[in-house]
Amino acid sequence: MTKQLTVAVVGATGAVGTAMMEHLTKRNFPIKQIKFLASARSAGKEIKFNNQSYIIEEATPESFKDVDVALFSAGGSVSAALAPEAAKRGAVVVDNTSHFRMDLEVPLVVPEVNRHVLKNIPKGIIANPNCSTIQMVAALQPIREKFGLTKVIVSTYQAVSGSGIAAIDELKAQSVQWEAGKNVEAHVLPVKADQKHYPIARNIIPQIDKFTDNGYTYEEMKMINETKKIMEMPELQVAATCVRVPVVSGHSESVYIELGQEATVQDLFDVLKNAPGIVLQDDIANQQYPMPIFAEGEDPVFVGRIRQDLDNKKGFHLWIVSDNLLKGAALNSIQIVEAMLEDNLL
Amino acid sequence: MTKQLTVAVVGATGAVGTAMMEHLTKRNFPIKQIKFLASARSAGKEIKFNNQSYIIEEATPESFKDVDVALFSAGGSVSAALAPEAAKRGAVVVDNTSHFRMDLEVPLVVPEVNRHVLKNIPKGIIANPNCSTIQMVAALQPIREKFGLTKVIVSTYQAVSGSGIAAIDELKAQSVQWEAGKNVEAHVLPVKADQKHYPIARNIIPQIDKFTDNGYTYEEMKMINETKKIMEMPELQVAATCVRVPVVSGHSESVYIELGQEATVQDLFDVLKNAPGIVLQDDIANQQYPMPIFAEGEDPVFVGRIRQDLDNKKGFHLWIVSDNLLKGAALNSIQIVEAMLEDNLL
Repeated sequence: MTKQLTVAVVGATGAVGTAMMEHLTKRNFPIKQIKFLASARSAGKEIKFNNQSYIIEEATPESFKDVDVALFSAGGSVSAALAPEAAKRGAVVVDNTSHFRMDLEVPLVVPEVNRHVLKNIPKGIIANPNCSTIQMVAALQPIREKFGLTKVIVSTYQAVSGSGIAAIDELKAQSVQWEAGKNVEAHVLPVKADQKHYPIARNIIPQIDKFTDNGYTYEEMKMINETKKIMEMPELQVAATCVRVPVVSGHSESVYIELGQEATVQDLFDVLKNAPGIVLQDDIANQQYPMPIFAEGEDPVFVGRIRQDLDNKKGFHLWIVSDNLLKGAALNSIQIVEAMLEDNLL
Repeated sequence: MTKQLTVAVVGATGAVGTAMMEHLTKRNFPIKQIKFLASARSAGKEIKFNNQSYIIEEATPESFKDVDVALFSAGGSVSAALAPEAAKRGAVVVDNTSHFRMDLEVPLVVPEVNRHVLKNIPKGIIANPNCSTIQMVAALQPIREKFGLTKVIVSTYQAVSGSGIAAIDELKAQSVQWEAGKNVEAHVLPVKADQKHYPIARNIIPQIDKFTDNGYTYEEMKMINETKKIMEMPELQVAATCVRVPVVSGHSESVYIELGQEATVQDLFDVLKNAPGIVLQDDIANQQYPMPIFAEGEDPVFVGRIRQDLDNKKGFHLWIVSDNLLKGAALNSIQIVEAMLEDNLL
């Protein structure tokens, strides 16, 4: 019988936390006991889980006593302060923020790609990668295993839910303003804490997260650095341009790759057809290709529009879509714990 | 004094035709006389131009008698039938459809890039390139002149107005349906004449135009082939993924290029700052970068988010946005005629 776990969910009322709760129920996750934690501001609120009511408790170091697994998605500063405290008290932490991702002692895990690193968790903390990165590496791993991989150039089309519930609400409010011919107000995107805000309804914003000193955004650098870490390929050439689009949920990616050897489109079809967590959706005669409206609420990573580069037999173009709140966040976190259970690591 | 021209506008009621009329007025185009032509279906309708009323006439071969310049944007089959007739009667045709673009005897012109080819118009027909192609080559030409260019990989974020007024109306109708929680109906996009139609509101569609036999769409092949023709670089490696987004007007492009030699971001700034038709909009400290909401209704091609590839000193990433109905269509057509007037070719 599967071990039953005591679980703490930190940040249950956010976009990822909500998806986390739905998927814990949907997947029959082996829960002995569950508690919901948040900042003092949200503590005391009632929350529904699996048809039962729970009161959200204030997250303190002592909250994690006797917790087996702590799922964090309450922002980087909360994880920075409390994830080590949870780990110190024996909980395995799966952290959805970027805070620990590049820490050499913190495994950064997409189970389909590198579940073997779960054997060694020096700090008791596992990082869940960036949403755009997860769906891309899940699709690239089976291709890389068979044909090698030397270069990745990705342009993203990222949904607003990646910026949280406030961004979803803003897209909806702006759409109503736009329809009514009113001034469109922007307060959340591209980055709430940055200086300027731009409408996302009827617009495309080429900024996700703040800018770093090298001209790339943090989101772009996450895709570059996390891809190399998860795939354990420091030598892999990765370039990213990250862009926000007026879609609620479901990130799309236009990905150019160069393989280590020549291949055909059929070769890639064959590899992806049987790959874990991947749905090949590539039937252009019937106009079948991945789109956010198909991916929203679905678990898999959808891959299509596979074309060989016309100038390079090792070059291929892919179109990759997945629900950024599910495989990109909540689902991948849960799968990390499930992988540990399967591998008797918990 | 500039020569005054007798102008025929074929397809004045469409999205491009409407923009054409606005810009003929706005730019004080030297019009001696103007007539508006359309299919029998639209003939007889009244149209306003420069505060005067005109009756749309049915386009027949004889309509082009004594016409100096005929501006076509009424679809490929109309151009196929009537552009040669107009040319035969002495009109210089500027055709906005794809019908003649790859004809070796038809110049394909973006004035900032290749106005010199206007000296030789064997068929009396000049083709206006694809919208996505125009804005890209306008931005790449000054870079290529200084540093050479070997490779282009582009992913587009194309507005619905590229599919005409029906697509704009559909986006608006779908948004209202979406807000009201109703079923979202799709009849126009991705391609009216194709089998299946998908919502564009809150969605991203990785299909523009129909599919060709090689798995690329016609839109993608247009970008590939037209770029090589306009830049007169058959050896240039070009790859394209063309994607529709829920934006009314303003195409965005994420473009990766490889130069013939190493350069710096500052080098590209210096070249683009002084390039004709280009506005460099790249000040990340102040979150300034091109976006469709800034570009709609504006003439220039906006370029920003310029970054050197982290793995290749000859590699650069650009973000290029322009109004697809203006520089991408109507404005470029008018600029072709203006260039001919300046060069005494009319």
